[in-house]
Amino acid sequence: MKQTFQPIAPPARLLMGPGPINADPRVLRAMSAQLVGQYDPWMTRAMDETQALYRQVFKTANEQTMLVDGTSRAGIEAALVSLIEPGDRVLVPIFGRFGHLLREIAERAGAEVHVIETDWGQVFPLRAIEEAITRVRPKVLAVVHGDTSTTVAQPLDGLGEICAREGVLFYTDVTASIGGNEFPTDDLGLDAVTAGLQKCLGGPSGSSPVTFSQKAVDVIYGRKSVEAGIRGEGDVAAADPIRSNYFDLAMIFDYWGPKRLNHHTEATTMLYGARECARLLVEEGIDDAVARHELHGRAMLEGVRGLGLDVFGDTSHKMNNVVAVVIPDGIDGDGARSALLDDFGIEIGTSFGPLHGKVWRIGTMGYNARKDAVLTTLSALESVLRRGGVSVTAGGGVGAAYDVYDDVVSPAPAPVVTESLDAGSAR
Amino acid sequence: MKQTFQPIAPPARLLMGPGPINADPRVLRAMSAQLVGQYDPWMTRAMDETQALYRQVFKTANEQTMLVDGTSRAGIEAALVSLIEPGDRVLVPIFGRFGHLLREIAERAGAEVHVIETDWGQVFPLRAIEEAITRVRPKVLAVVHGDTSTTVAQPLDGLGEICAREGVLFYTDVTASIGGNEFPTDDLGLDAVTAGLQKCLGGPSGSSPVTFSQKAVDVIYGRKSVEAGIRGEGDVAAADPIRSNYFDLAMIFDYWGPKRLNHHTEATTMLYGARECARLLVEEGIDDAVARHELHGRAMLEGVRGLGLDVFGDTSHKMNNVVAVVIPDGIDGDGARSALLDDFGIEIGTSFGPLHGKVWRIGTMGYNARKDAVLTTLSALESVLRRGGVSVTAGGGVGAAYDVYDDVVSPAPAPVVTESLDAGSAR
Repeated sequence: MKQTFQPIAPPARLLMGPGPINADPRVLRAMSAQLVGQYDPWMTRAMDETQALYRQVFKTANEQTMLVDGTSRAGIEAALVSLIEPGDRVLVPIFGRFGHLLREIAERAGAEVHVIETDWGQVFPLRAIEEAITRVRPKVLAVVHGDTSTTVAQPLDGLGEICAREGVLFYTDVTASIGGNEFPTDDLGLDAVTAGLQKCLGGPSGSSPVTFSQKAVDVIYGRKSVEAGIRGEGDVAAADPIRSNYFDLAMIFDYWGPKRLNHHTEATTMLYGARECARLLVEEGIDDAVARHELHGRAMLEGVRGLGLDVFGDTSHKMNNVVAVVIPDGIDGDGARSALLDDFGIEIGTSFGPLHGKVWRIGTMGYNARKDAVLTTLSALESVLRRGGVSVTAGGGVGAAYDVYDDVVSPAPAPVVTESLDAGSAR
Repeated sequence: MKQTFQPIAPPARLLMGPGPINADPRVLRAMSAQLVGQYDPWMTRAMDETQALYRQVFKTANEQTMLVDGTSRAGIEAALVSLIEPGDRVLVPIFGRFGHLLREIAERAGAEVHVIETDWGQVFPLRAIEEAITRVRPKVLAVVHGDTSTTVAQPLDGLGEICAREGVLFYTDVTASIGGNEFPTDDLGLDAVTAGLQKCLGGPSGSSPVTFSQKAVDVIYGRKSVEAGIRGEGDVAAADPIRSNYFDLAMIFDYWGPKRLNHHTEATTMLYGARECARLLVEEGIDDAVARHELHGRAMLEGVRGLGLDVFGDTSHKMNNVVAVVIPDGIDGDGARSALLDDFGIEIGTSFGPLHGKVWRIGTMGYNARKDAVLTTLSALESVLRRGGVSVTAGGGVGAAYDVYDDVVSPAPAPVVTESLDAGSAR
């Protein structure tokens, strides 16, 4: 019998893991807009606007700010494969899973990768990274900003100056942190930054906002090669081209720039979504969004503590948007997650490698950095823990979170349009 | 003054170029569904269903049938970089722009690429490709199926047997042809096939359906390397890993397979769209969809001829879904395209390289392979040509298309649900 397939109809879920989280409904609505052609003047203007919006999100003046058409991992690979020539030295400070990923991607790009490592849950002191830079003398320093696998963010202050002094390209991935934690690209002296939509930006995975300094752009254009099928007069094939065509940022720059040189066919629906993610963030105010993540993240942190649970890692460097909770003795961590999902429709995460089965990761990010999402999750978690035989303080989680909220002076309500609907104004 | 940005609001366009075309509204609706977590049982089932649906679209029993998270070009690069080790010989028959692209991507993957070329608009006789295979003895034969740059499709019959006999991996890209032209993966003996949504599948660019034979899978798994951050006992790092992490199909297979080994974060919204594209095609019937493309493509072909225009290329090998029209003397090709876009909201395309400015490309594909889209386009084109000073037969285009439609016995209407809304049944 032929198998039949129904239209997509996902179950209701409150996604409170380390991401992806629920997309802002406005982002999904934007993504339901009809397509236009890739060189339609309206489309190229939408691309320009998307660039302008992400300059605000990244807090950068970088001309080369755009989207890579793939998940956040695609943005990482585009940055590294475009910057790295085989044999180049790359330094990767590893403090969690995604540091390993940067190493792995750099190695596959042919780099001679040097790493320094610290325990998961910790970050590096500035001097440890500086020491490694002067010892290794890398072409690129590649460091994750916030690593969701451990929930901590590496402080980046001061690294820009060191990299500039030592002639090192400074790259970071901010997929987990951007929008929910302070991140001023230009003030930090970064040369390359990559991100994703599925965490604090409130969109679906599948588009990677990226930005590059003029120094990085010069390196990348120095490796430019125009493909034969569209090569014009004066265009050349490089002797040692970037190893990837899809991730060749020199070509991607020319596609997004005034030349509009054909490369891939832009993923229009993902662009609509990425643009709306940035537009909503800019409308809210980047700093206000960070403050929102700080508030709800703190409420969740105090809430899990209020339930009597321990928190993993160096909380002084914890990202605003995710907390790692030590799974208490006597409960099956995956069973508890299943109960949350199956009975309450709430998803939380576990972690990778050394932390797998040891911690739960609970996110408060993007659209879900909200009071009701925090309180609902804490309330359900209490129920699941109690039924799992864990001794918890009744109402301890929700109470601690309420305490956080009660201490906060309510933010000013959004401006109300004063034009009323009474008979007078309707005339 | 701070620049403000409005919600996305694209202009109404009828996209009758070589793709992207208007997405089927049902696909866009599917893409507005809310996200679920990437390991949610509902999500992994949706991934399984997507695989099952694309097996039907590709007409294959290949277990390894899934999506690569990127545009169609991402699928091409994933196939080539995963199959090719540096130094491997690859044979690329080039008959248009996208053959050059295959060459370029294979070169960047480190292949020793050999090409044979024919004039744009023509295809190769089987014996020319066979001769090159026996001369070059490549590891991979990489050939575009339908090349939108020239509108023709290379016949692939017989190549599978030759490749099997010679121990060659047989790869083709069907982005432009799948869904609108007959394409039985297994019957053709293919080892690797890549596609995109934005042509006859009726979706947006940004997801690449792919399928691989067991022979290709064995080659790819032979190069497997598990990244350090998630490496378990027994997992190894390969000596010469696939050059890309993002496009490492061995890892992508394990992410889609029962192991669900974490790789990228699946682009959920694109998956919803890709699933719906395939679901609609399967619901219509693959062969019926091809017949629909044949009908409306033929109506467009006869329509442009009826306007007195010449058609470029070997029409005996023309794809059903696109026609290349020689731009008549005395009219500015780009000006005419702009008039169609600005005044009628209809987009048609130009082409690349040797054909740029010489032909228009008019598509009838996916959601736009419809009678009203064909007649509207021909009618508007006649108006624009006349105002541009070209002598055209009044009504010649629409008339010739009507003749095509009138010769066809109307297909049976869709089954009507007979349950009525009268009082009796409402009881």
